[in-house]
Amino acid sequence: MILKPSIINVDVGENRAILSEKDARDLGVRSLDRVKLIAPELSVTAIVGTSSTMVKEGSVGLMCAHECYAQLSSLQNIEIVPTTRPDSVEIIKKKMDGKVLTSPEVRTIVKDIVSHNLSDVELAAYIVSTQIRGMNLDEVTELTKSMVETGTTIELDKHPIFDFHSIGGVPGNKITMLVVPIVAAAGLQIPKTCSRAISSACGTADIFEVLANVSLSKQQIKDITQSIGGVIAWGGYVNLAPADDLIIRVEYPLSIDPYAQVIASVLAKKKAVGADYFLLDIPTGPHTKVPDFDLARRYAHDFIEVGRRLGIKVECAITYGGQPIGTHIGPALESREALMALEGICQSTSVVEKGCSMAGLLLEMGGVADGNGKDMAREILTSGRALAKLREIIGAQGGNPDVKSGDIMPGKFQATIDSQTEGYVTAINNKDLVKIARAAGAPKDKGAGLILLKKRGHQVKRGEPVFEVYADVEIKLDAARKQAQRLTPITVEGMVLERIPSRRTTIVDYTKTE
Amino acid sequence: MILKPSIINVDVGENRAILSEKDARDLGVRSLDRVKLIAPELSVTAIVGTSSTMVKEGSVGLMCAHECYAQLSSLQNIEIVPTTRPDSVEIIKKKMDGKVLTSPEVRTIVKDIVSHNLSDVELAAYIVSTQIRGMNLDEVTELTKSMVETGTTIELDKHPIFDFHSIGGVPGNKITMLVVPIVAAAGLQIPKTCSRAISSACGTADIFEVLANVSLSKQQIKDITQSIGGVIAWGGYVNLAPADDLIIRVEYPLSIDPYAQVIASVLAKKKAVGADYFLLDIPTGPHTKVPDFDLARRYAHDFIEVGRRLGIKVECAITYGGQPIGTHIGPALESREALMALEGICQSTSVVEKGCSMAGLLLEMGGVADGNGKDMAREILTSGRALAKLREIIGAQGGNPDVKSGDIMPGKFQATIDSQTEGYVTAINNKDLVKIARAAGAPKDKGAGLILLKKRGHQVKRGEPVFEVYADVEIKLDAARKQAQRLTPITVEGMVLERIPSRRTTIVDYTKTE
Repeated sequence: MILKPSIINVDVGENRAILSEKDARDLGVRSLDRVKLIAPELSVTAIVGTSSTMVKEGSVGLMCAHECYAQLSSLQNIEIVPTTRPDSVEIIKKKMDGKVLTSPEVRTIVKDIVSHNLSDVELAAYIVSTQIRGMNLDEVTELTKSMVETGTTIELDKHPIFDFHSIGGVPGNKITMLVVPIVAAAGLQIPKTCSRAISSACGTADIFEVLANVSLSKQQIKDITQSIGGVIAWGGYVNLAPADDLIIRVEYPLSIDPYAQVIASVLAKKKAVGADYFLLDIPTGPHTKVPDFDLARRYAHDFIEVGRRLGIKVECAITYGGQPIGTHIGPALESREALMALEGICQSTSVVEKGCSMAGLLLEMGGVADGNGKDMAREILTSGRALAKLREIIGAQGGNPDVKSGDIMPGKFQATIDSQTEGYVTAINNKDLVKIARAAGAPKDKGAGLILLKKRGHQVKRGEPVFEVYADVEIKLDAARKQAQRLTPITVEGMVLERIPSRRTTIVDYTKTE
Repeated sequence: MILKPSIINVDVGENRAILSEKDARDLGVRSLDRVKLIAPELSVTAIVGTSSTMVKEGSVGLMCAHECYAQLSSLQNIEIVPTTRPDSVEIIKKKMDGKVLTSPEVRTIVKDIVSHNLSDVELAAYIVSTQIRGMNLDEVTELTKSMVETGTTIELDKHPIFDFHSIGGVPGNKITMLVVPIVAAAGLQIPKTCSRAISSACGTADIFEVLANVSLSKQQIKDITQSIGGVIAWGGYVNLAPADDLIIRVEYPLSIDPYAQVIASVLAKKKAVGADYFLLDIPTGPHTKVPDFDLARRYAHDFIEVGRRLGIKVECAITYGGQPIGTHIGPALESREALMALEGICQSTSVVEKGCSMAGLLLEMGGVADGNGKDMAREILTSGRALAKLREIIGAQGGNPDVKSGDIMPGKFQATIDSQTEGYVTAINNKDLVKIARAAGAPKDKGAGLILLKKRGHQVKRGEPVFEVYADVEIKLDAARKQAQRLTPITVEGMVLERIPSRRTTIVDYTKTE
């Protein structure tokens, strides 16, 4: 059928061809069927939608999820023919039935995802099937490889290359801003790509963007790493493992994160920058992505094994995720606290402790430290070499290299939340803190966030402030304050720590001394 | 945020609010998040989409899946606020984790489906989770009840009410056109609602529409049943169990049909017309929906039990589905063959046999026959009383009550497919026949379809015709012919029946004599 194309510039995440109901009937297709759009030097598939009034007979409305649509819009006519579903649909059904997929099958799915060949329904079926049925390590390895091959790769001139990643879920985890400059200052290459927040208060890309440009090209990432040793870039901008973003888009509304997908997603991005050595931080605790040690150990084992198959030497650190790292949460506030740690004026021992522990492990993996990595990392930090290196990176990424922590201002609207009771802080709910920070405007509003005044083990008097909320916009401060009152993210209980003293010794918790 | 609404009349099956990227950022929402649309006397939710060019800042484009959109379009301004996901999302995740849902949880999901509150992604997650994890009979019962309560119900003045349904998958299954008039002629009430084809060559609604109007109102269904005893109406038109259509819309692109959903879907529509006695035909055989006897027996058991809990006395007949019923496939051709059977001139014993067996079981369930239902049904058929009753029904539904089988013409373009080899028909592939009939234009083109000239056990000479293809449109005939050559749906093998004679006795097959 020959129709006149008109562009409907709406991104619904997939190619859609909107037909009049009559044309759809004449073509013998219905909603969610597929058609092929054929024009000179072009052939793409689209999912059928129908309309009784918007699209006239003889016309087809095309919704964008594909570059070639611009090309289509210049055409007077386009041929539309019904076509079959992509092979992936049968493969997804095989996974639904609990079967193991072959390597070509996994590759077919990834290729179809990246080509926008799967509808939201099919993508959701893939994600839910993977969530329920799981994938074995052969499948995960193939998934990772396919995700690398369908995206951008960055090739540095020299190896070895080091990389680092924290699995999400613990707020205030700004330690990448310590790890990268410490490792780079020790002479190792660390082209760190990171992400923006999806459901957290902020990702490292959101935090570092307060200080410098994180939307760097492939060439910039390469040049800066080769000249300075380190970079902190937003991975989404350079299209590393683009399948991941398309999968996350559908995972997000379901709030699920299939185990196999977590491993493939992280390792694909590390492989894409050519990492030889990779340290994975697995924050573990209630309200994080990895609630218990058994799961953390399983992740560690599987990350190491899949890494081995990809030629990446992976080490994992299971870290304490029971409360935020440091006290500052939110883009501007976290960049400020990270700078304070580098300047040697940070009150939170957890930021410095965790940053130096992680950097130290990388220094040991790189052979520049021999069992004393953490001491060496701390020396690089306290000597000011890490701060100097971060300023070099900030300058190379177009920021102000002379920035000081005191220059970074949180949102101008501020509220203080007081304790309703008296005792000790016995629990902090990470998820509730994130909800409050997001209500205050994070991650979009850079100044939005929280400062914790009390953490676990601290004594609190009735009416004493427990945290502060910051916002760039007054109405969002009100929203955050309401959330704070509703959620009470910080639990204060009378003398609990004294009543159950064993608790202080059974938890391996470097933050409890704060 | 106050925005100016503009209607985008595209049915993507769910409410969508398309925001400019800037407005979405300012609202703090992203693609697939939810917003609430608030106007005087109105509050609906919609799924967020974003556009860089189509929607200007300050405007919101609304895509229709809901009646109230017309109301929205008259407004100058509308308030948009971010809102949380419906409760169903957490309930679906519970099912994803393999847990049993409570009654209120099942009801919440059905309510959200019917209110268009779930996105395609969430609906797909529900369907795939149900497919993999299954549902117990408590869940299925609650699902059925909720589907009834969220749709139209028809209340006849008198009981008992009888009903009949065939599970799909066997082509040529036009026997409803025999069962309804036989049962009604015996004085029982049978308000038969039926469906259009989704993936088959034609549904009963498509077939009977050749002879009469099937888009009947609730009142018409009631009136015709009460005055004549029987009706054959398209269930989709009166909104019986509307959740089902919304679920099918998403099952269709995945070609899955979760076990629990099959039971709930069928029984909800029977409960909605007030059925007291219900006969279920379960065609079983390769390439049908129920490929083996174990599954057929499981279905039978569970249909009976869920029916019991709903107050419906269910009986099931596991029938032979290894090849088509009769020889005619396609809307016009099947209506013709059914009329031929009623006129006593049908060559296919399977149509008459199956029709009388099914009608006979209903007569026995209704107590009008005492163990001799099939004989009584055959008597009603051969006496011409069934034909007279069908003509009454046709007349009441606005068709020509004097219609004869010879009046029904198949498509004017015809091709004959010859055997490439010699021997006996050893197998007929139902799915391949459906593909060919659909390529010829069925179910949209009423004249499109097939006539089988040979069925299982028949002897075939090389070059002898095995089936005919009909189409209303020449180009579709060519497409169907190409499919026929590619698929060879009828397997002819030399002397197989003689070499393995036990085959003729082990299969309980009333069609093998044709």
